[in-house]
Amino acid sequence: MADTKIVLPDSEIPRSWYNILADAPHPPQPPLHPGTGQPIGPDDLAPLFPMDLILQEVSTDRAIPIPDEVLDVLSVWRPTPLHRAKRLEREIGTASRIYYKYEGGSPAGSHKPNTAVAQAFYNARAGRTRLATETGAGQWGSALAFACQAFGLECKVYMVNISYQQKPYRRVMMETWGAQVVASPSPDTNAGRSIRERDPESLGSLGIAISEAVEDAATREDTSYSLGSVLNHVLLHQTVIGQEAQRQLALAGETGIDVVVGCVGGGSNFGGLALPFVGDKIAGAEIEIIATEPAACPTLTRGPFAYDFGDTAQLTPLVPMHTLGHDFVPPGIHAGGLRYHGVAPIVSQLLLDDLIRAEAYTQNDCFAAALRFARSEGIIPAPESSHAIKGAIDAAKRADESGTSQAILFNLSGHGHFDMAAYESYLHGSLEDFELPEEEIQRALRAIEPLPKPAGAPA
Amino acid sequence: MADTKIVLPDSEIPRSWYNILADAPHPPQPPLHPGTGQPIGPDDLAPLFPMDLILQEVSTDRAIPIPDEVLDVLSVWRPTPLHRAKRLEREIGTASRIYYKYEGGSPAGSHKPNTAVAQAFYNARAGRTRLATETGAGQWGSALAFACQAFGLECKVYMVNISYQQKPYRRVMMETWGAQVVASPSPDTNAGRSIRERDPESLGSLGIAISEAVEDAATREDTSYSLGSVLNHVLLHQTVIGQEAQRQLALAGETGIDVVVGCVGGGSNFGGLALPFVGDKIAGAEIEIIATEPAACPTLTRGPFAYDFGDTAQLTPLVPMHTLGHDFVPPGIHAGGLRYHGVAPIVSQLLLDDLIRAEAYTQNDCFAAALRFARSEGIIPAPESSHAIKGAIDAAKRADESGTSQAILFNLSGHGHFDMAAYESYLHGSLEDFELPEEEIQRALRAIEPLPKPAGAPA
Repeated sequence: MADTKIVLPDSEIPRSWYNILADAPHPPQPPLHPGTGQPIGPDDLAPLFPMDLILQEVSTDRAIPIPDEVLDVLSVWRPTPLHRAKRLEREIGTASRIYYKYEGGSPAGSHKPNTAVAQAFYNARAGRTRLATETGAGQWGSALAFACQAFGLECKVYMVNISYQQKPYRRVMMETWGAQVVASPSPDTNAGRSIRERDPESLGSLGIAISEAVEDAATREDTSYSLGSVLNHVLLHQTVIGQEAQRQLALAGETGIDVVVGCVGGGSNFGGLALPFVGDKIAGAEIEIIATEPAACPTLTRGPFAYDFGDTAQLTPLVPMHTLGHDFVPPGIHAGGLRYHGVAPIVSQLLLDDLIRAEAYTQNDCFAAALRFARSEGIIPAPESSHAIKGAIDAAKRADESGTSQAILFNLSGHGHFDMAAYESYLHGSLEDFELPEEEIQRALRAIEPLPKPAGAPA
Repeated sequence: MADTKIVLPDSEIPRSWYNILADAPHPPQPPLHPGTGQPIGPDDLAPLFPMDLILQEVSTDRAIPIPDEVLDVLSVWRPTPLHRAKRLEREIGTASRIYYKYEGGSPAGSHKPNTAVAQAFYNARAGRTRLATETGAGQWGSALAFACQAFGLECKVYMVNISYQQKPYRRVMMETWGAQVVASPSPDTNAGRSIRERDPESLGSLGIAISEAVEDAATREDTSYSLGSVLNHVLLHQTVIGQEAQRQLALAGETGIDVVVGCVGGGSNFGGLALPFVGDKIAGAEIEIIATEPAACPTLTRGPFAYDFGDTAQLTPLVPMHTLGHDFVPPGIHAGGLRYHGVAPIVSQLLLDDLIRAEAYTQNDCFAAALRFARSEGIIPAPESSHAIKGAIDAAKRADESGTSQAILFNLSGHGHFDMAAYESYLHGSLEDFELPEEEIQRALRAIEPLPKPAGAPA
């Protein structure tokens, strides 16, 4: 029997993270202080993050060693398997070879623990004893709860109220790992209290939850803030995914990959898989790298590149990114992890540099791809990951139409075991498609005021 | 970094199932026809099962080859990893080495697909185009739905009504894989209709659902019945678990294992892990093999060995097993997969032969062990599997008390991502303990009338 699943032993977990900033033609422009408009420095971030992570945020070293303590926890589920999707290939009748990297086997069910474990470790080493974060549907909060438990840290999660009410199981998962979870807006912060005074029934939002977690961390010596995507160091920690995939493809006898696909919310699972291949592309390899996003939140395909806030409440630095505006509230699609108005500066810059391209899909098309995958390969995908499946199937069809056989790789970033209500809606034909009307996009775009680039910034 | 997780490539999935009946000192006594009281033969079973499975049910060949088509589907998630639980060892401060085989990485989240895939394959090869089965909480039904999809079979699942109402996500999971799921009692069978006439609000039971699935299969040429535990061929299909573990322990440098632990409902995950080690024990190895069960359903620890029906409605053959009586309805513990009045004849006979022993635990003790495991090893266990964790921790403590260091292996048969409501009850202190009062056990035992053994049966 030929191996259709390539596994690696614990000893082959990558020993360093790959830093695209060492190779990228243009580094992302620096974040700006919201007050002064000047580039922020490490000291500005020190109240929120430990210095190790701040230094990783600005490092241009190509390889950054992964501490043994982090490797030890990652080895619970890493290296993750690389699957050849032979049944899916047969189902769609393609001559191409489709591979997927499966990140759903982690304790939290997605790729998120890859960075959560690293962040918890560096915080513990810096003497912090507590982390604060926000979570929407709960993927990130549960990953951080798991990681904090591994390093003996307390974990406080501000969970968007509507999710707290509607998705109790993710909350219980965080509590099982020892985290304290509160509905946001909460009575525990000034930001939360002021919103509750104005609107006692507030359903909350990711923007409000970020404000609460940032305030919590900024006002307590023992506490750092932790973010699950967007930042350079978060994408860095995820590059174990792509590095493992490179080794596994070689073991599968693939001498080169033609297409790499990942779904994009903030950009971390896409970056984790794609960045090592972007490095190969910069070095001369011919690879098509596709970021797939929801048509309901078309940040990369429709959003301009601008300096914008990471949160609704305008507490964060201004970051250079493709954005639909920090006031933009995406429709309630089931791929909750892709509902973010902006995208990581690294990913935004790679799009500007034509090293990657982006495609946007509607919800029903993605669930159709997810069902096709579940009924051929067996694994039920997270709604977020279904955007990558759709991208991979489309790439295979394009190859067939042009009469070529390609090697296509995508990131199956998580399982869908917590998303069965979404599958039920799809199976019963009641899933809405939320493609944004042009006028709504134009309204969002008008609200964005691109700031001037700082002096000396690259084009 | 030393490997704490031992993985095997696809090519090392076992090529044959291990049949304990070739080595066991006493084979289980034969099932009896409920009408005649005589041992049943292959022809009696032919309306329900394809001949390949009937022959496996009675085979005494030691190694039964696994067809390539079955290996191909198993390779989606097999071989499964063997973990050294170093963090759990530190947490409990033991000098012993604890290993666990993790079956929760399968598409359905448990060990159940190991036999579902084989059963679907043999049925497809025999020309059946449809399988009927029952399911309680949904683990077995989802495994069979997945397997039927892999071989292009229709799948009809009779799901106990109360679970159908309370656990919609498992139902949607089955539908995602294309199965038809109905609440049992259903209007689709005579058995279902007659119960609905008497009690239109019936919550159903596993016994009723079995009756419906058996009637469905017996009355349709195109349809077989499929069972997820208890039968010889089901335990046979699960022996890939123990065979892989044997190889992985050798790779980990363990020259022998001292203790093997599995939880028991019908007996399939326990048998799957333990039977190859029972073979080693019969050949002379010193291994303590422990079956752990709920104190709320103490089949092995309190039930007599008797001929009893597999279902409440008395439709099945009489099988020789430890049983609390086919009328016994276990309390509603969260480990739904362990709520069965009987246990596999193979497991029952091994207990009679002193090759294994049994322990019973209360629900809160098991959840305490599960939480300890989740907070050290990271993986959130299924409530069923928590009984094995409790058994392994207790074994480690006994070794420490006697001043020895042992190698202890248990089966982590599934993840708990669909069981967060149970964790919530535990975390908030509202989980009930349901240890059966002695009078209830005595009442159950009085209802059992052990049948005489057939002439010529071994002791």
